[in-house]
Formats: sequence, structure tokens, C-alpha cells
Amino acid sequence: MRMSELSDRSGVAVPTIKFYLREGLLAPGERTSPNQSAYDDSHVERLRLVRALIDVGGLSVAATSAVLAAVDNTGMPLDWAFGVAQQALPAVGADEDDAEALGVIDELIAERGWRIDPRNPGRATAARVLARYEALGLSHLRDGVGDYLRAAEIVAASDLTAVIASPDRSTQVETVVVGTVLGDSLFAGLRRIAQEQRSHELFDPTGTDCEDSE
Amino acid sequence: MRMSELSDRSGVAVPTIKFYLREGLLAPGERTSPNQSAYDDSHVERLRLVRALIDVGGLSVAATSAVLAAVDNTGMPLDWAFGVAQQALPAVGADEDDAEALGVIDELIAERGWRIDPRNPGRATAARVLARYEALGLSHLRDGVGDYLRAAEIVAASDLTAVIASPDRSTQVETVVVGTVLGDSLFAGLRRIAQEQRSHELFDPTGTDCEDSE
Repeated sequence: MRMSELSDRSGVAVPTIKFYLREGLLAPGERTSPNQSAYDDSHVERLRLVRALIDVGGLSVAATSAVLAAVDNTGMPLDWAFGVAQQALPAVGADEDDAEALGVIDELIAERGWRIDPRNPGRATAARVLARYEALGLSHLRDGVGDYLRAAEIVAASDLTAVIASPDRSTQVETVVVGTVLGDSLFAGLRRIAQEQRSHELFDPTGTDCEDSE
Repeated sequence: MRMSELSDRSGVAVPTIKFYLREGLLAPGERTSPNQSAYDDSHVERLRLVRALIDVGGLSVAATSAVLAAVDNTGMPLDWAFGVAQQALPAVGADEDDAEALGVIDELIAERGWRIDPRNPGRATAARVLARYEALGLSHLRDGVGDYLRAAEIVAASDLTAVIASPDRSTQVETVVVGTVLGDSLFAGLRRIAQEQRSHELFDPTGTDCEDSE
């Protein structure tokens, strides 16, 4: 198909497709004349994946590029694919103010007898948040970190179950990267829903605000 | 203090402070001469909050501005503050492809007997992710949505406990907005840690990869 049809079928505008081609997020089509190329279903699928990572997962073009490299590298071990998906977290640089908070995270890990690579980017991300809570005078927010980790265990177990349930190798890797990136958004959405419900239960247990609106 | 000292104490560069002043994220200082203003501790604190929302929470300047309005509006009911914090989710427009996925989310809500405002932005965000899983041929990732919701309940209960534990009204509102926005990052970080551990348990239960590296 031509680029105009690729645009129609994927819902991605032609200038955006050209941008993705320049950035290497999309493989070139087969050249059919000096200024025309032919695209196929694999291009439609790849555009869907790119849009999901960028629009729903909130990834940058650079992070999307790294994640796609994992999807395309069929020889990549599964734990490496997790590593690449993990790098899709917003980059958090080292900060000496976070040393104390890193200690809090490491203690939680040690209590559970877990062995976690110190370079796991989740460790720095979590510590950074705890350090900011403290700096903002909201240290009581730290009391929830045990609940958060318990919830993260449930989600991680579910994530790995989906990886194992994948029918083949390439689906496994796609499950790792898509599930890791989009799973953050899924959880954030469900958390907003659960917050509203919990807030009703605590502050408006009889549900009068709903009945009044009739 | 002058702007140079405000910059030193907050760790935010002068041009960035000027940008925040123009965007209304930071209140003007008290003018002491035609081209000089005086700033105080409240400016240092506000800069810390702005940096936390932008750097750690990943918010845009526009979303940060909306969230700060909630913090500053002392008359705002607590459930409105939750509403504003919820709007800090990446905007998800309506999409007719999501209708089926919205039905899946609504069914989960109905099963629990919850009453959730259909405009809760978490509903559209979660549905969008489920729709993308399907479009990408990864519908087995949907099987985890019940686990995700169970985990979200644990986190939401913890979030509301922190709100109730806040000593005063303004701390309550700050706890809602900071805890909601930065809590997404905290959870994402802890999820990466739990994924690594779960992956060891499933694929490398004896921990040989660690011992080999000595």
C-alpha cells in the first residue's frame, strides 16, 4: 500500500509517519519508484505499537526507540527485555539527597529477602519520591510505602503470569514491554477509580450526593 | 532574599525561576526597586513543590498549574482536590474504539457495587489501555485487570489514610495532590523492583546468576 493508505488504516497522519521513518521508529517501505514506497500490514501493526507507547504509555520518542529495539531483537533474553522496559521510566539522575531514602527502599527489599540489582531503575525512582515527600514536609506519605510494595507484588505476579501465558517468543517480549509501559497507565487509572470509591466510603457513606442530583 | 539566593536555596536556575514567574507557577516577590524583588521561604517551598510535580511526577507545566490552584484554594472541598489531582493524568480523549473496553471497566465497578462518576478520568485511562492491548493482539494482558484493581484498592486505602493523618487542612490538600501525582511514580518504581524479584523466582530460582558474578 502507499503511504496515504497506511495513514488511513493506522489513523496516523502522513507527516507523523514521515517523522517516525526519519527517527527509525518505523522501517522503510519497499521502494517502488524514486519517490514512492510500498508498505504492508507489518507497518500498520508497528504504527499501532508506536502510538500506544507514545500516546497511552506517555513515552518519549527516544524511550520508544529503545523499547522497540527490545521487541525487534529476537535473541534478547527475557530478563534483558524487562531491563529495557524498565529504562522506559522517566530518567532519574543520582542525587545525594536521596541516600537516606535509598536506605529505606533497600531495607524493605532486605526484609523480604529479595535480591535486586542495585541498578534496577525502580529503586532510584521510588527513593526519589520518598526523598521529595520528606523535602515537602509530607513525611506521613512515607507510611504508605509498605502498602504500595504489597500492591506492586500483586501486579508484578500478574505481569509475569501474562508473560508465561504468551504463545510464542515474540509475543512474550511484546507482552513484557507493552505490559510494563501501558500497565503503569492502567494502574494509575484504576487507582483514581479506587480513590473515588474509598473517598465516598469515608466521607459520604450514605451516598447522599448521588441521590440529591436526581 | 534576592532571586540569586532563591536560586541557590532551591537549586532551581534563575532563568527557570523567571519562566515559572511568567507562567504563574510562582507568586511574584515583593518589589523593592524598579528591577528587583524580595522573595521569602514560601517561594523556596513552592519551588520545591513545582520541581517535585514536574521532575518526579512528570507533569506538564499546564497540569502543574491546575494542581497548584487546588493547593492554593483553601476553600476547595477535599473531593474536588481529588478531582483536580485526577486531572493530572495524561489527557485521554474520547475514542469510539474504547466503548467495548469502557464496558469491561464498568462491569468491574458494578461487580463491586461501587458508585463512580462516569467522568472520573481514571475510567477513560484504564479503558484506553485495555483497548490498546486488544488492538495490539495482546488481549491476554487483559486477564490481569482484576489483579490490578485489587492492588489499586490497597493503594487507594493507603492514600486516604495519609489524607486523614494530615494535621491540618492545607496539609490535607497537599497530601492529596502530591500523593496522587508522585504516588504513580512511587508505584511504578516499586513495580519494577517486584517484577525483577518475581522474574528471579520464576526463571532463576537458585540465584546462580548472582553467585557466578563473584
